[in-house]
Amino acid sequence: MQKAGKSILEINLARVVENYKTMSKSIKTGCIAAPVVKANGYGLGAAPISEALYKSGCRVFCVAYVEEAIQIREKIPNAEIYVFHGVQQSDIEIAHRKNLIPVLNDLYQIELWNSYAAKNNKKLPAVVHVDTGMGRLGLTESNIERIADNDDFLNCIDIKYIMSHPSCADDPERKENAKQLEELKKISALFPDTKISFANSAAIMLGNEYHFDMARPGCSLYGINPIPSKPTPVQQVATLKAEVIQIRNIEKDQAISYSGRYQAKKGDRIATVLCGYADGYLRCLTGKGSAHFEGMRLPIVGTVTMDMVMIDISKVPENRLQYMNYVELLGDHITVDELAQSANTIGYEILTSLGNRFKRVYVE
Amino acid sequence: MQKAGKSILEINLARVVENYKTMSKSIKTGCIAAPVVKANGYGLGAAPISEALYKSGCRVFCVAYVEEAIQIREKIPNAEIYVFHGVQQSDIEIAHRKNLIPVLNDLYQIELWNSYAAKNNKKLPAVVHVDTGMGRLGLTESNIERIADNDDFLNCIDIKYIMSHPSCADDPERKENAKQLEELKKISALFPDTKISFANSAAIMLGNEYHFDMARPGCSLYGINPIPSKPTPVQQVATLKAEVIQIRNIEKDQAISYSGRYQAKKGDRIATVLCGYADGYLRCLTGKGSAHFEGMRLPIVGTVTMDMVMIDISKVPENRLQYMNYVELLGDHITVDELAQSANTIGYEILTSLGNRFKRVYVE
Repeated sequence: MQKAGKSILEINLARVVENYKTMSKSIKTGCIAAPVVKANGYGLGAAPISEALYKSGCRVFCVAYVEEAIQIREKIPNAEIYVFHGVQQSDIEIAHRKNLIPVLNDLYQIELWNSYAAKNNKKLPAVVHVDTGMGRLGLTESNIERIADNDDFLNCIDIKYIMSHPSCADDPERKENAKQLEELKKISALFPDTKISFANSAAIMLGNEYHFDMARPGCSLYGINPIPSKPTPVQQVATLKAEVIQIRNIEKDQAISYSGRYQAKKGDRIATVLCGYADGYLRCLTGKGSAHFEGMRLPIVGTVTMDMVMIDISKVPENRLQYMNYVELLGDHITVDELAQSANTIGYEILTSLGNRFKRVYVE
Repeated sequence: MQKAGKSILEINLARVVENYKTMSKSIKTGCIAAPVVKANGYGLGAAPISEALYKSGCRVFCVAYVEEAIQIREKIPNAEIYVFHGVQQSDIEIAHRKNLIPVLNDLYQIELWNSYAAKNNKKLPAVVHVDTGMGRLGLTESNIERIADNDDFLNCIDIKYIMSHPSCADDPERKENAKQLEELKKISALFPDTKISFANSAAIMLGNEYHFDMARPGCSLYGINPIPSKPTPVQQVATLKAEVIQIRNIEKDQAISYSGRYQAKKGDRIATVLCGYADGYLRCLTGKGSAHFEGMRLPIVGTVTMDMVMIDISKVPENRLQYMNYVELLGDHITVDELAQSANTIGYEILTSLGNRFKRVYVE
């Protein structure tokens, strides 16, 4: 679809790169940081973000789907690209041709890739994903026993990493973290001399013993604090500037928006701005969200609608905020983590929900 | 972005057309039904939906942005296209060239369009939006007095309709409905011989006196029940089929997904399917959503993640549901209204959140 909106989503690529460097510095020597750019770079643009990271020296990327990997491959011919969802029969050919590295999540995918490699008289690279407590993808205990006991499973696979994924790393107090670590060490002992990948952004912050050989920072690159109970190590990346389409002086007490949940008083001034839940400004922010303008916090009033929200600008000096001006709904003043908390979700969902109708501006 | 997903979003265009016909039959004779296809056709595809409606005889469409209107214009050269957000200085020229009809929401937009028309020695069509209680866009009482008292405001404008928007029509019991009606009649008396547009889908259901000359059905076309307390008059349009990427036999009691909110028992079978909050399956459906497969309801278990959700398929006979099969997350069995209720929102947000990673299949 053509960009329809007049509101602006600004994505600061320089800050993505800085966040990547910050996270890389937190990682122990010898461990590499492979940024996760799945889901269109957490909604902010996989292609421009990957290119910016590449220019800063990054050569390894992680995505979820083969199709996402192909998008990165087109931009960066020599990138090392890991595909979390692995391969299916339908995309195995292109995955090989595009030189992708699938993460093999179960015996089916292992057999598929191994026999494909055998047929082509090749040893093909892959990651073997083992479940240590996430309960989503990855080999189970009995799966692991089977492949450890039988060399045929992996005889045509060049295992780049044994990989696992943390389930509770955003909370350093959880005992699951050490338990997953212990489990992973036990499993990896069955694959001597094989490298290990475990840490997401949060697990990077848990300390060196969680780092192993390749870490996979995701949320932190996009300005999300990986461990909410601690000060954030990263900078905001996305700024959402919503354009004012109308400013109204309330002439008599009246309801604002659907269902009349909010009553404006005579003398209030209400701005209507171009951003609604169709643009990813979650409807549950009704009565909770706020806007920022020149040092002032302004409450969203009334139900969030599909294309617009209303803001009480009564405390802004008259004529200071005008038609076609912008207010910040997300950015340095209203961080992605704060907005997520208001919406009772996590920053990841805030970013991946941001819609297609903004003018997207990339700041180098 | 390229389509990355393997899950399928099926959009039944025949049903959109049937819903349009159903709503049209509910409208009094002489009133036309102008489908609302803003926000990319409520997330389901403005272009294919508009074309399907056009083929069925529809000639009038409503969108929010000039850019959305241009997209329709490219497909349907002779459509009558109304633009709810009106025009700004920056798009007035193209709005005119593309023969769009702006909805003028305040004195500023009226003056802009009127003086543009004057400069071009033309009388240009437009809709004048008056606020009767929605408190979002539209002329205030004092605005209306000003333009009614001064012919110069509208002397180069061909007023196609006086328009207003209902705030509470989804609840027939609300006294606001009759009040808005009364207010609109009072205002329209100031513009004799001018047609009126008021009803959205819900207000269409409130009865003939709400219909006037042009109704603007939106949600109903896409399968959303306009009045939740009554039986739905419309059919489901969107079907979301999520592909199974893994089926796991739980070998010992274990946690599923982030934060270990759900504990699976030894012997359970858990399917992981390709659809997460980055695809618009709202994260607040954690612990609430469900899937449908061959007459069985299967609960989503554990936290909804960015790219995947997990489903307890223990009650499905073994080997009946397999790798690369599909489960329904939205459709005839799990309606958009039901899913919305589970997520504590409205069907509109469910549809406009559906992401870019599905294979979108249009059924004629």
